[in-house]
Amino acid sequence: MRILITGVDGYLGWPLAIHLAARGHEVAGIDNYARRGWVGEMGSQSAIPIAPMAARLHAYREHLGQNLRFYKGDLADYNFVLNAYRSFRPEAIVYLGEMPSAPYSMLDVHTALYTQQNNVLGTLVTLHAMRDAVPDAHLVKLGTMGEYGTPGVDIPEGWFELDYRGRKERMLFPRRAGSWYHQSKVHDSHNVEMACRLWGLRSTDIMQGVVYGTAIDEIEGRPELATRFDFDQAFGTAINRFCAQAVIGLPLTPYGKGQQRRGFLALRDSIQCLTLATESPPESSDYRVFNQFEEVYSVMELAERVQRIGNESGLDVKIHPVENPRTEAEVHYYNPDHQQLLDLGYEPTHDMDAELRKVFRDLLPHRDRIEERKESQFPDIRWDGSRRPSELLGR
Amino acid sequence: MRILITGVDGYLGWPLAIHLAARGHEVAGIDNYARRGWVGEMGSQSAIPIAPMAARLHAYREHLGQNLRFYKGDLADYNFVLNAYRSFRPEAIVYLGEMPSAPYSMLDVHTALYTQQNNVLGTLVTLHAMRDAVPDAHLVKLGTMGEYGTPGVDIPEGWFELDYRGRKERMLFPRRAGSWYHQSKVHDSHNVEMACRLWGLRSTDIMQGVVYGTAIDEIEGRPELATRFDFDQAFGTAINRFCAQAVIGLPLTPYGKGQQRRGFLALRDSIQCLTLATESPPESSDYRVFNQFEEVYSVMELAERVQRIGNESGLDVKIHPVENPRTEAEVHYYNPDHQQLLDLGYEPTHDMDAELRKVFRDLLPHRDRIEERKESQFPDIRWDGSRRPSELLGR
Repeated sequence: MRILITGVDGYLGWPLAIHLAARGHEVAGIDNYARRGWVGEMGSQSAIPIAPMAARLHAYREHLGQNLRFYKGDLADYNFVLNAYRSFRPEAIVYLGEMPSAPYSMLDVHTALYTQQNNVLGTLVTLHAMRDAVPDAHLVKLGTMGEYGTPGVDIPEGWFELDYRGRKERMLFPRRAGSWYHQSKVHDSHNVEMACRLWGLRSTDIMQGVVYGTAIDEIEGRPELATRFDFDQAFGTAINRFCAQAVIGLPLTPYGKGQQRRGFLALRDSIQCLTLATESPPESSDYRVFNQFEEVYSVMELAERVQRIGNESGLDVKIHPVENPRTEAEVHYYNPDHQQLLDLGYEPTHDMDAELRKVFRDLLPHRDRIEERKESQFPDIRWDGSRRPSELLGR
Repeated sequence: MRILITGVDGYLGWPLAIHLAARGHEVAGIDNYARRGWVGEMGSQSAIPIAPMAARLHAYREHLGQNLRFYKGDLADYNFVLNAYRSFRPEAIVYLGEMPSAPYSMLDVHTALYTQQNNVLGTLVTLHAMRDAVPDAHLVKLGTMGEYGTPGVDIPEGWFELDYRGRKERMLFPRRAGSWYHQSKVHDSHNVEMACRLWGLRSTDIMQGVVYGTAIDEIEGRPELATRFDFDQAFGTAINRFCAQAVIGLPLTPYGKGQQRRGFLALRDSIQCLTLATESPPESSDYRVFNQFEEVYSVMELAERVQRIGNESGLDVKIHPVENPRTEAEVHYYNPDHQQLLDLGYEPTHDMDAELRKVFRDLLPHRDRIEERKESQFPDIRWDGSRRPSELLGR
């Protein structure tokens, strides 16, 4: 298949391109290096060094024996996107090109506006360019489990049958997001669903859990193919940030009670699932939603697991919960479905310990890069718009 | 109360300012005259002449004995909006300042992007400026009944109790909008609900039906206080467009079967309801949703009513359905609740015939202004992105 990945320079986009090429697909990518810029704005950098795009493309060709067709530009620019589609004629578009951080979106009015503008308009341009150039292509759109929030009821995969006052209708399940970033994904979901309904496009919307890890088979042992690894307060997600903290001897800092429950999955599982979704397109007009994660854990369970694996590696890992900078429920019901990817053949890794050992293996040589930017991992972006470092809490 | 109206130069904003001032409130307004521009883009103009803002403000002062504090600027400009709030210190903000046309939003990729950018970012700026300057103010936000679409189940007022797999939760009722414009209002609703939940703001979100008419008591007999009246395919809504067609001897053109059912209300009822909502603010953190319309009618019923009243006025009114340029259900279940405004004291006009007679009375002197722009009322904006005039259908 001809598959175009937006955000191909990112944490998921780069390994996905490699994995799809290794499976024999022809891959193109779009990026404007915005992720490198956002992390720089947070005073941080990728813990694992990543090459500039020209060097990445060279390494890709060396290892995979084909070119990655790379288009540099802004996804909110209709003419640029239309040109890329007309030139590459993708059969699938994996849309990862969004600003992915809740804290960054809550920083101030400017980052809030930027987040919704970048994400919502980029997707809207994509829908129009698909309609105009590749109406039969499959849009694999990256959403987030955070679209649902944490309601006190089970969470189906996107749709449900509403039984209301004696009548029934298949409806989108109500969303209740908790940041401007998460809301931007809710808006995307509504826009994409409408484009499928009115224009006959086809899409899989991926409600993804929190991804952790450094490894997919095609990357291991090839540092020139490595993907980025962030640990700052905005772009470093829970498990990854814990691992980076452990590596430089900082305590792991779950927020508040640490009883927040979320779906998590390893990087290799994310890549596996995105591949499964891409290789099994839905029918025209179908807006399909997958909840994509391996298992639900509490943040504290994960901190304890990172502690155990870190201690095995000879580190002395402490856990010090800090004041929660977010406004969120810390103790809540959480029971989301996740069946459809299993039905497509998803084989979950299950061995989180092995994945964490690989993270430590890959991070330890870059201890200095984390140490040099360690201030960036202390949370101080508050959901109320203020900027105030979180205090340590008693455990 | 000190009440700030965004979109004060518009069809609803201007009479609302007058009505609130007549009730003794202190009123401010924001506008950038965008509505005049959009209608110009469609090759049209207001059938009823409206004065430039400077003359409007002069007439306002003459008739109401107070100034309208007018701020000219863009609602997506945070510093401008913050300055207006800090200077006027509104207790309520009635947010009418959005691009309100479904066909305009479906015209092409550029108007689609503009619509979501203008509407979503303007509201997002407002939420931030409220948080930063007037956190206790009440946001009366204009949404649309079109956010819900036409599901095969009853439509509650915004919220419902979801009973799902044996557990219950109060949730936003699922939205299913049918244009990029309507989706922009869905996005707004999600953003506003989150700001109430996280920041303790208070808001009433008005899911309004289709408004028709020219009259509120304070305007009648005072042409210098008149509000605009649009009849083009994008900004002229069903009943108003029918009246304009009748006045110049064109057939009334319901779309398709004309069996689409919608909630409608007279301009004076819209102003009455917005006033009631504004004068009865909800508690802090409360996101309240009102469905605002007087009664549900089919489009064909309304065409026939306009025909009858037009014929009474000595016109010879024909009805010729045309091919539906929209992608929408033409025959559908429709049963939305609308109780909360009645509970607040809303007294519906009920006398649609009298309102329509006033429309004819106000339009007949401006027959030439409609005749000169009559091409603008023929629909040719297709929901599939093409531009093709709708053919006449047999009745």
